[in-house]
Amino acid sequence: MTTSTALLLADLTGVAVFAASGASAAVAKRLDLFGVVFVGFVAALGGGIFRDLVIDEVPPLAFADWRYAATAAVTATAVFWLHPQLARLRTTVLVLDAAGLGLFTVTGTLKALDARVPAVGAVVIGMLTAIGGGLGRDLLTAEIPVVLRREIYAVAALAGSIMVVLLSALGYAGAGGLTAAALLVFVLRLVALRRR
Amino acid sequence: MTTSTALLLADLTGVAVFAASGASAAVAKRLDLFGVVFVGFVAALGGGIFRDLVIDEVPPLAFADWRYAATAAVTATAVFWLHPQLARLRTTVLVLDAAGLGLFTVTGTLKALDARVPAVGAVVIGMLTAIGGGLGRDLLTAEIPVVLRREIYAVAALAGSIMVVLLSALGYAGAGGLTAAALLVFVLRLVALRRR
Amino acid sequence: MTTSTALLLADLTGVAVFAASGASAAVAKRLDLFGVVFVGFVAALGGGIFRDLVIDEVPPLAFADWRYAATAAVTATAVFWLHPQLARLRTTVLVLDAAGLGLFTVTGTLKALDARVPAVGAVVIGMLTAIGGGLGRDLLTAEIPVVLRREIYAVAALAGSIMVVLLSALGYAGAGGLTAAALLVFVLRLVALRRR
Repeated sequence: MTTSTALLLADLTGVAVFAASGASAAVAKRLDLFGVVFVGFVAALGGGIFRDLVIDEVPPLAFADWRYAATAAVTATAVFWLHPQLARLRTTVLVLDAAGLGLFTVTGTLKALDARVPAVGAVVIGMLTAIGGGLGRDLLTAEIPVVLRREIYAVAALAGSIMVVLLSALGYAGAGGLTAAALLVFVLRLVALRRR
Repeated sequence: MTTSTALLLADLTGVAVFAASGASAAVAKRLDLFGVVFVGFVAALGGGIFRDLVIDEVPPLAFADWRYAATAAVTATAVFWLHPQLARLRTTVLVLDAAGLGLFTVTGTLKALDARVPAVGAVVIGMLTAIGGGLGRDLLTAEIPVVLRREIYAVAALAGSIMVVLLSALGYAGAGGLTAAALLVFVLRLVALRRR
Repeated sequence: MTTSTALLLADLTGVAVFAASGASAAVAKRLDLFGVVFVGFVAALGGGIFRDLVIDEVPPLAFADWRYAATAAVTATAVFWLHPQLARLRTTVLVLDAAGLGLFTVTGTLKALDARVPAVGAVVIGMLTAIGGGLGRDLLTAEIPVVLRREIYAVAALAGSIMVVLLSALGYAGAGGLTAAALLVFVLRLVALRRR
């Protein structure tokens, strides 16, 4: 498996878990199938669309590569049909969401650096990529945005995006370093969930 | 009348009817003249601004061609002054809104295809162009977004944008085919309103 | 001091006062440090990010120049720590906010004209730059957006952006004319606050 295949798989995994989180929130609000798919789509792809607009990668990947929209739509539809069973999987969804946060932080920061955005901007863009979809999901479902609640969520993404920028500046942004950054976000978020 | 004149007229008609729908919602919330014009502007031009940003048509048409902003502002101001009379025209506004949905679906999908966005992306962009303004209107006036309610709205736009992409792939995207796609959206939406 | 240094200082002053207004609103909602910094960031930089996206200045200045994000973050953090003292400074914050409205109206309209946006579009972009951050702040903190309340806010910005476009067309867009336009917005807003 090449590096770019690995990155694509990481990205699509992030899309799927965020689509599941958005769809679950929409099911809880008793939306119909289309509403569930729409919120899942926003949660999965909103952060990446914002990222691509600010780094001038247009059309955004969400529209340029059909696998992104398809992954989001299929996952959200599956959640709609399966949600009685998923209710028991709430912990699993939170863990997957934490994994998505780590994956999107790393890929978002990397893409901003590749587009020659300076360090501070790349850190902010990486964090916004990771939290943007959840923000859209919460605005649509009229919830207080998770990034504004008293929880470690965006701060975990911020720590990860700073680590990616530092690794990149030091020449250590290989598979090992990037995996470590994604794991840092993942573990920080899990610890915050456990303490709650 | 040339094709591009016909498209411009269709587009400005869509702007006017969506401005009227946004202004009506703002009047119902007892906003002042500026608030009514602002919500009308967002409802009329929000979807097109989003579309132009993702297909890299900058500055967006809403800012590049003064007739768009002027149409939205004049229509919203007229609704503000005339709304006691318009209250009796609620059905007319819903019918015009359905017509706007059809027009924006067709022009949004066509512009995305012209910008070389692949088929799935063009379908999604066409749908978002049509529903984006209404989404902004509902977020500003603190209503549950119409696309998330249990009604056929976005699905009608989706059917129309899929039809435009298919017609285009088959070489039938002439005036007749495009009119048929706009009518499909219009009729689907009217049937949904009648069943309510 | 050169003109561009003066403009940068004016811009960063606007960023600081809007960050303070966003952070104050977030403190009032009892958000934690990160939530306060996030809302301050959106209030300070949201309008400018939107402006840069529609005039194709990418990456937006908020990400391309670290001084913008740093000014917003430092100001919001200071508000978080100092807010008991700031409570007595509410009037000062409103006055600074009016100053920020004037500064952003002028710089936003100028940048749109520089990007060759036509007159009507530049007027609208200048106004949206000035009010965009406050709109984001109000959506995040679930307040009725200030632009939709029965107050002179966006109309003051609109008067200023029209004045900048007229001055520019007549060849009087020098330091004196632009300062007068910023003062126009500032005074209109102060008069509206006093009448309340």
